[in-house]
Amino acid sequence: MDVLELIAGIVRTDQNLIQSAEELDKAIDHIVQLIQDSCCLFMNGSYPTSAFLSITACEEVAKAHIGSFTDGKHPEKSGRNFFRDHKTKHQMAALPTVPMGQRLQDALGKAELQRLMNMAQHAGFVQARENALYFQREKGSLVIPVEKIDKKLTRSLALFAIEVFDDALVGRTNHSYEMDDITDALFEQIKNT
Amino acid sequence: MDVLELIAGIVRTDQNLIQSAEELDKAIDHIVQLIQDSCCLFMNGSYPTSAFLSITACEEVAKAHIGSFTDGKHPEKSGRNFFRDHKTKHQMAALPTVPMGQRLQDALGKAELQRLMNMAQHAGFVQARENALYFQREKGSLVIPVEKIDKKLTRSLALFAIEVFDDALVGRTNHSYEMDDITDALFEQIKNT
Repeated sequence: MDVLELIAGIVRTDQNLIQSAEELDKAIDHIVQLIQDSCCLFMNGSYPTSAFLSITACEEVAKAHIGSFTDGKHPEKSGRNFFRDHKTKHQMAALPTVPMGQRLQDALGKAELQRLMNMAQHAGFVQARENALYFQREKGSLVIPVEKIDKKLTRSLALFAIEVFDDALVGRTNHSYEMDDITDALFEQIKNT
Repeated sequence: MDVLELIAGIVRTDQNLIQSAEELDKAIDHIVQLIQDSCCLFMNGSYPTSAFLSITACEEVAKAHIGSFTDGKHPEKSGRNFFRDHKTKHQMAALPTVPMGQRLQDALGKAELQRLMNMAQHAGFVQARENALYFQREKGSLVIPVEKIDKKLTRSLALFAIEVFDDALVGRTNHSYEMDDITDALFEQIKNT
């Protein structure tokens, strides 16, 4: 099921995940903390953990954004909550408006931005998330996160997460504009690496 | 099934998760990076993300330790790999030798150390891990990680993760002693907060 169809098919309830502007602001504070943590570790050269946190920030943006209209009950699959499914959250973060931002296009280049959108839409973030956190055996050898997640991907994920936040949540409350000053500064800092 | 029974019942294979000293050293480098990331974010005041990374470090220690003897196939539950189960990894990290270390007892106090052992053994780390990363609704309100994970728990988890690493892995290779210098310095730094 396409994610836009899924969103269109959501049954509105009065039990939304986010139920007020105050709650949205709390979620925004949490998301900006994740983005700050990701950027701090990126600047320290700890790329895999940074990448994991950028992907987590994208998930939390999707919950805060779409969760303003729904409690997450899947419209077709009984008993399933799509806010507990990593792949669906990644798809709900990578909406078609994200790559339209000129700032992200300029910072990543069109090809890299398209790679990120494809990853988010086709479970590439699910795989990257696991690869970023855990060691594992692969084709007969032990592989650790630093061998799977490089600086380029980590930089792209941090900038992508900031743009996803900006696109989905900034402008919805006054507080979101204040927090946007923090993430705008981080975007510039990471862009110039 | 008690975790010591589980470990005793493990069927030895020649397909262990860790198959050489070189592989163990790679896993150690990855674990020490997680500990460094956790301590960096703790010193920055980002407690929930730090707590999440300390718990992840414990999981990876358990995999590197027990994974030197097994591929993780569950001895009784067909098709299950216990290295993919968070609760089992937490139990395998919190072995009875961990609270015997004088350094950890001195830094946490006996009651706090017992609280951490209980959490690790009875799915408390599973809950803390989720609470540290994601916002959620609870009893009619939105709750964000910073409301669930405080400085005291985060400090305890960072020190606990360092001791778990030290207890299970330091001494097994020459490289582990070098990495222990890094984590010993972090232990002192975090202890004095």
